[in-house]
Amino acid sequence: MFPSLAALRDAARDLPPPDEIAAAAVAEHQAQLTKPPGSLGRLEDLVAWLARWQGQRVGAAPRLDRIDVLVFAGNHGVTAQGVSAYPAAVTAQMVANFSAGGAAINQLSRTAGAGLRVIPLALDRPTRDFTGAPAMEEREFLEAVGCGFDAVVPEIDLLCVGEMGIGNTTAAAALAAALFGGGGARWAGRGTGVDDAGLARKRAVIDAALTRHARLLGDPLALAAALGGRELAAILGATLAARHRRIPVLLDGFVSTAAAAPLARLSADGLAHALAAHVSAEAAHRTLLDELHLAPLLDMGMRLGEASGAALAVPLLRAALACHTGMATFAQAGVANKEA
Amino acid sequence: MFPSLAALRDAARDLPPPDEIAAAAVAEHQAQLTKPPGSLGRLEDLVAWLARWQGQRVGAAPRLDRIDVLVFAGNHGVTAQGVSAYPAAVTAQMVANFSAGGAAINQLSRTAGAGLRVIPLALDRPTRDFTGAPAMEEREFLEAVGCGFDAVVPEIDLLCVGEMGIGNTTAAAALAAALFGGGGARWAGRGTGVDDAGLARKRAVIDAALTRHARLLGDPLALAAALGGRELAAILGATLAARHRRIPVLLDGFVSTAAAAPLARLSADGLAHALAAHVSAEAAHRTLLDELHLAPLLDMGMRLGEASGAALAVPLLRAALACHTGMATFAQAGVANKEA
Repeated sequence: MFPSLAALRDAARDLPPPDEIAAAAVAEHQAQLTKPPGSLGRLEDLVAWLARWQGQRVGAAPRLDRIDVLVFAGNHGVTAQGVSAYPAAVTAQMVANFSAGGAAINQLSRTAGAGLRVIPLALDRPTRDFTGAPAMEEREFLEAVGCGFDAVVPEIDLLCVGEMGIGNTTAAAALAAALFGGGGARWAGRGTGVDDAGLARKRAVIDAALTRHARLLGDPLALAAALGGRELAAILGATLAARHRRIPVLLDGFVSTAAAAPLARLSADGLAHALAAHVSAEAAHRTLLDELHLAPLLDMGMRLGEASGAALAVPLLRAALACHTGMATFAQAGVANKEA
Repeated sequence: MFPSLAALRDAARDLPPPDEIAAAAVAEHQAQLTKPPGSLGRLEDLVAWLARWQGQRVGAAPRLDRIDVLVFAGNHGVTAQGVSAYPAAVTAQMVANFSAGGAAINQLSRTAGAGLRVIPLALDRPTRDFTGAPAMEEREFLEAVGCGFDAVVPEIDLLCVGEMGIGNTTAAAALAAALFGGGGARWAGRGTGVDDAGLARKRAVIDAALTRHARLLGDPLALAAALGGRELAAILGATLAARHRRIPVLLDGFVSTAAAAPLARLSADGLAHALAAHVSAEAAHRTLLDELHLAPLLDMGMRLGEASGAALAVPLLRAALACHTGMATFAQAGVANKEA
């Protein structure tokens, strides 16, 4: 566990660089495969991205043998402000549903050939309502970050991160607003389905939180502690751990992206090892992806969380890798190349 | 086989309607699953679409047990005009590569859990250069349509259609132009990678073809015979057969979509059972999808053909169906619903 915000900040700034030699080897191999150059579009980029961040040995292809989907769950004091369409008890109920195999992410993880682990974080101790106080003390925040960091085992080839937490789109919106500017009007959305009055409350709550915690602006980690939640902190920790362990990351929706965003504020390439698996129906997600210069792989109008969008994108990576490793070269297949 | 264009036209106008009862049953079940209503976005629509066109028995979920990928290959006399970056011999070489398992579509079909069948159509007899004569006689065209029609076996749950044919983006562009208006400037693109001079030749070839066959405008099937190719005709036949056999269809890229487009011209809902699996990097594909009111599932910058985009989208359908059939209901899981 990180002993202090300063230690965490150091870990978020001292990052391993990409392996451009591995990425170039992928590109060189792709150029020999029986297809016009670049004709597999982003599938080609995805394989290079895997190589760049896995840092393969020369001659070895990237791997997708073991994929973990980590879903972190937390509860939020800000639900007292009426910002969600669902009661806070649903967080624990959905964690039980994950355990029983009945949620969307159970089906999507299985379809993706990925292992699913759900990690509830002190659900009986919601964070404080951040309109009145910091959501977490520094120690609570660092514990949650550490929990996420330690959940990433070095053996995996790809990490998908997601979350469950009634009220957490409000926390994500407040954090995004504090990190990137603009108030509740820019960042609040309907989440899992609040009505007009609920949306107006979300906006007001975000604006109130920005005013209360204005002195923290410019300190991404302090903002994550004051405005985020335990599951957001854990996603930050897991995403950081993946970078240090050479594991590429698929981010899920708005909440997951906002959770990881402080890493991009602490280091310009802090999320270079992460891809946006999709853009969700929550309008603020696209705004946030634009701020982070992340181009989503999928746009399916989803707004569920749970890592559902991340898991859905895994087969795209598998398909990309299957082409890379399985296709014949022009020479092997006796196919005339463009220059022939 | 269809004995005449008139018989084919009749078959393309006398189409089975959607099964809205099956689609409504899917929507009713989705509403009970442990997720906010609509939060799986297009995944929910996809399951309803499968039900609508498979026409399931009441109480039975849609199926994706057997999926066929059909790739039709043809050669084109218009290649004499220098419209492709590759020699025409590559069509047959790539068919051999498909047989040997070395092409992208082999890997993508396997990843999708789909069966792949490649059907070469008289590769030793290219169609005529359509700047000087109709590409096909009526009999040749109907033969190719019939070949595609007969390739669709009734047992399958989903059909993916694709093509291989050096020069066929020029044929597709000429057909799209004749069906939807605009000339070479609107519809010609770089295909598998022609240079500026090649692109200028494509535009001129399309404009010349439109002038020569102007008397056919308004007759979609006659245009498909005059400007298309055997693999395009076969895709039209396969897409029509799927409709009559209650099999939903995933269209691939620009060429496949243009090949099926006459069905939408012959009947307003002629492609209602088909989805655009992706939008390709060929700019004319998006133009054509807009004309057909088709919203692509994926946008990965691909421009390969071979049904590659269609096969890549199959896991999205599998994921959607897995959620539909595997998720618990609110009642089963003891999760509080929104109204609770």
